[in-house]
Amino acid sequence: MEKHAEQTKQTYAGWDAFYNRESKEKLDFFTVNDRIFDVVLAEQFDRSFLNDMCALADKIRLMAKTRMGAQKLKSLLPTKRAMLYFVQPSTRTFLSFLNACQILGMTTSEIRGTTTSSEVKGESQEDTIRTFASYVDLIVARHPEAGFVEKTAWVLNNSDRPVPVINGGSGPDQHPTQALLDIYTLERSFSNIGGLDGKKIAMVGDLKRGRTVRSLSYLMENYRDVTLYYVAPEVFKIKDDVKAFLDRRGIRYFETEDFQSIMPKVDAIYMTRIQDEYAECPENEEKSYPDFHFREDHLRLIQPHCVILHPLPRRYEIDVAVDKDPRAAYWHQERNGMWLRTALIAHLFKVDHEINAEFS
Amino acid sequence: MEKHAEQTKQTYAGWDAFYNRESKEKLDFFTVNDRIFDVVLAEQFDRSFLNDMCALADKIRLMAKTRMGAQKLKSLLPTKRAMLYFVQPSTRTFLSFLNACQILGMTTSEIRGTTTSSEVKGESQEDTIRTFASYVDLIVARHPEAGFVEKTAWVLNNSDRPVPVINGGSGPDQHPTQALLDIYTLERSFSNIGGLDGKKIAMVGDLKRGRTVRSLSYLMENYRDVTLYYVAPEVFKIKDDVKAFLDRRGIRYFETEDFQSIMPKVDAIYMTRIQDEYAECPENEEKSYPDFHFREDHLRLIQPHCVILHPLPRRYEIDVAVDKDPRAAYWHQERNGMWLRTALIAHLFKVDHEINAEFS
Amino acid sequence: MEKHAEQTKQTYAGWDAFYNRESKEKLDFFTVNDRIFDVVLAEQFDRSFLNDMCALADKIRLMAKTRMGAQKLKSLLPTKRAMLYFVQPSTRTFLSFLNACQILGMTTSEIRGTTTSSEVKGESQEDTIRTFASYVDLIVARHPEAGFVEKTAWVLNNSDRPVPVINGGSGPDQHPTQALLDIYTLERSFSNIGGLDGKKIAMVGDLKRGRTVRSLSYLMENYRDVTLYYVAPEVFKIKDDVKAFLDRRGIRYFETEDFQSIMPKVDAIYMTRIQDEYAECPENEEKSYPDFHFREDHLRLIQPHCVILHPLPRRYEIDVAVDKDPRAAYWHQERNGMWLRTALIAHLFKVDHEINAEFS
Repeated sequence: MEKHAEQTKQTYAGWDAFYNRESKEKLDFFTVNDRIFDVVLAEQFDRSFLNDMCALADKIRLMAKTRMGAQKLKSLLPTKRAMLYFVQPSTRTFLSFLNACQILGMTTSEIRGTTTSSEVKGESQEDTIRTFASYVDLIVARHPEAGFVEKTAWVLNNSDRPVPVINGGSGPDQHPTQALLDIYTLERSFSNIGGLDGKKIAMVGDLKRGRTVRSLSYLMENYRDVTLYYVAPEVFKIKDDVKAFLDRRGIRYFETEDFQSIMPKVDAIYMTRIQDEYAECPENEEKSYPDFHFREDHLRLIQPHCVILHPLPRRYEIDVAVDKDPRAAYWHQERNGMWLRTALIAHLFKVDHEINAEFS
Repeated sequence: MEKHAEQTKQTYAGWDAFYNRESKEKLDFFTVNDRIFDVVLAEQFDRSFLNDMCALADKIRLMAKTRMGAQKLKSLLPTKRAMLYFVQPSTRTFLSFLNACQILGMTTSEIRGTTTSSEVKGESQEDTIRTFASYVDLIVARHPEAGFVEKTAWVLNNSDRPVPVINGGSGPDQHPTQALLDIYTLERSFSNIGGLDGKKIAMVGDLKRGRTVRSLSYLMENYRDVTLYYVAPEVFKIKDDVKAFLDRRGIRYFETEDFQSIMPKVDAIYMTRIQDEYAECPENEEKSYPDFHFREDHLRLIQPHCVILHPLPRRYEIDVAVDKDPRAAYWHQERNGMWLRTALIAHLFKVDHEINAEFS
Repeated sequence: MEKHAEQTKQTYAGWDAFYNRESKEKLDFFTVNDRIFDVVLAEQFDRSFLNDMCALADKIRLMAKTRMGAQKLKSLLPTKRAMLYFVQPSTRTFLSFLNACQILGMTTSEIRGTTTSSEVKGESQEDTIRTFASYVDLIVARHPEAGFVEKTAWVLNNSDRPVPVINGGSGPDQHPTQALLDIYTLERSFSNIGGLDGKKIAMVGDLKRGRTVRSLSYLMENYRDVTLYYVAPEVFKIKDDVKAFLDRRGIRYFETEDFQSIMPKVDAIYMTRIQDEYAECPENEEKSYPDFHFREDHLRLIQPHCVILHPLPRRYEIDVAVDKDPRAAYWHQERNGMWLRTALIAHLFKVDHEINAEFS
């Protein structure tokens, strides 16, 4: 690690200044001709983009059901090659992106973990990134370091070989494609009752550090008249910056430690687990906070149309017995991730119109 | 590991009762419309199925020899995606399945080892399995735990997204595709002398724990008038359950510690190595039991048509000098594994008739 | 490791005698019908072959720029399967070969590191190699052991299933495809000024152990009137065997420790890093030898057409600020590696004429 610190002598100039800008000020940098080029921050998604992605994912899902449709999808990007650079362990996000690439006919390279990487030879992160870009047409990256994926996009956009970068999770804050698939799942779940606008959503568990909850909260500014219920023990309460954001945007929210009291009120319950990876004090988390679990007997308390989501993996937060209930949406949510990511990649490579044309 | 023990609180109900049934009582559960859906147990294979697989593998092998034929094969499953979940180290079985998938045009995802898996986040095995099924159309699994792959198939068949599961080796007992490829190799080796019916086969080495020997023994019930010779030191003798099975089925067998005495009698010699992985007392095995090795000078003792098999990897059991003899069939056997597994996958996805049609 | 030593009892006969021959005496063994079959040693490349590879790589690069061209390339080897066996960590070479295979439509299997390999079960290297050959049509191997890849080719050429082998780096000496891509980069850089013939090239850094410098020096025998400048601290001077070779071939060279003095004289500067992997005394190398670095202010000293190369990864040898200068060729060099390796594989599988036909 000291070696790594020394390397920063070799760092590219200008990054720190860029990184410290407000998110909204950065968006242009990740956009080319009014189209998202790099997917780095959830703040890049506006209502129109979110709607497009949901509609596109729906179409892809339908096409994939038939042999002809699946072959059409696979014919869209046969000569494009993607790099999956997953420094942080991840089964779900990794497989989801990998299969999304394969659905579109892309071939892939994988670096998982850091041991096989040239980083062991003392190469700087920036050089490693440029190396990946030398060989492929798309980089999907996941990294434990906040800002890493943003830096990746920044380095490449400053080089003479920019390739699109997708953030597959970067440090404690950013995981924009998870937020996208959560929106997609909510919109699908509410498709017969007017979509996400006007709904009441509870978010439960570790709201302090869970990046999915944070991103999802921010995206609510795109929907009308949503009410949020933050349900967490004192130690894992949602952070003030999120609340300040909601206040500025006029989004209604409540905080409570009484999970059962809000169960009958809400249209969706978004469960999360305690995030060991970023734990400051893991011992405290060994208590599994049973008051913030969803148990089988809770099914009697929630509304008939209320859906239960979870980014997975789960530990104890949801009884396995709940899975059989039609309101348990987390397994669909997981598979939605693959369709949504397929849609996203199709959009980046501008083959979305070829998919849309199949339905016209 | 304690964590894992705790997780079992979250386990799916009903598995234990299923697992403890007799094999023959389980077969229906892995069958859909009279066709094998999951490949879990060697007991699933009857003579008709074994004949079909051998014939199909022969056709695939032939087609692969020409560019047109190989392209036809690759066009069979272009939109299907497989997951190779290999928790236990394995080069051979892994590569064999991977290339089998590629021959049919499938794309693949790999999880090898457990470190990159979500299991580190405390997810239950069942949830991990369901996650894989969310993204792919076929799961090939290998695991050190007895019954793991069976459980995989059981979990998925009880979910709303069952995908076929193939057992690539599960614990000390089950490795059904190895048994399949052994049968295929024997049938091919004897193709000019009436096939496997009526043949005498010696199995040599660690018969106590070697799962290939056990599975192969069970499959002999499908062939007429086969005689088995079990050649092993006292400590590695074939177990009583196998002998009881053979007695019930009326299959003739002999046990001996005198390898040389049976060499001139048999039509095939199936060599095996000592399995360190499951060793209770590894020190004892450091002696390599030279009386149970096949040496170059033994070639003079065996019949001109006698074939020598080995599931590989070998250590000292067969002299390298034996490889050049045309009766050494183990390298063909290894490649046969790829063709046979290709046939098996083609069968599961019901494209076997498209292959057969090429020869009509 | 003792286990491994014991295994050599099982080694294939004849290897040692072969290995100890002069390189030039071995070349026929890696050639079939006057065409290179295995790519093992830089000595296999003559001027005509080097010219062909450079021209072919240029064509591939052009074709890949258009969708039609890229699809044509991908249609060349759709039914061929490659194995990438990378025991030694390597991001660049690995990705470069992997993407080269994908460009031509090949599918791939990977073994990276040794932990997932059957070697843990005590299998000999030779058997592991034969196993790979059972499943695939091409093996690309990288190994820390000198001669390993040569042995791979030797074993397979002595078996009844020879498949082509490409050396992706084997021990401290051999890395022939790096030499190829260096030649390609130099030839491209000088395409408007008569190519590599007659040029002056400085090689800087760890010349003692850097295999790229050694290979590149040897290949200079194929070019007319080249002058080499070896710039290194005493402890990392080029070895006597290379100098003896240059003397025999009448290639002019100079040695110096004064980097700045030769900067204005040369047409290319080939920078290298200190190779920790083979370090006998790593402490000494912690000093980063700043006199042998290329700094931003050096750009004023070199000629307008002088190119700067580096096999990458770099540490401190070249200032990041140098990257923006058009004479910095190392990032192009890296991507050239992918095109060159694509050309090489196309040549091995005899589809080079199909590429050439696109331009006739």
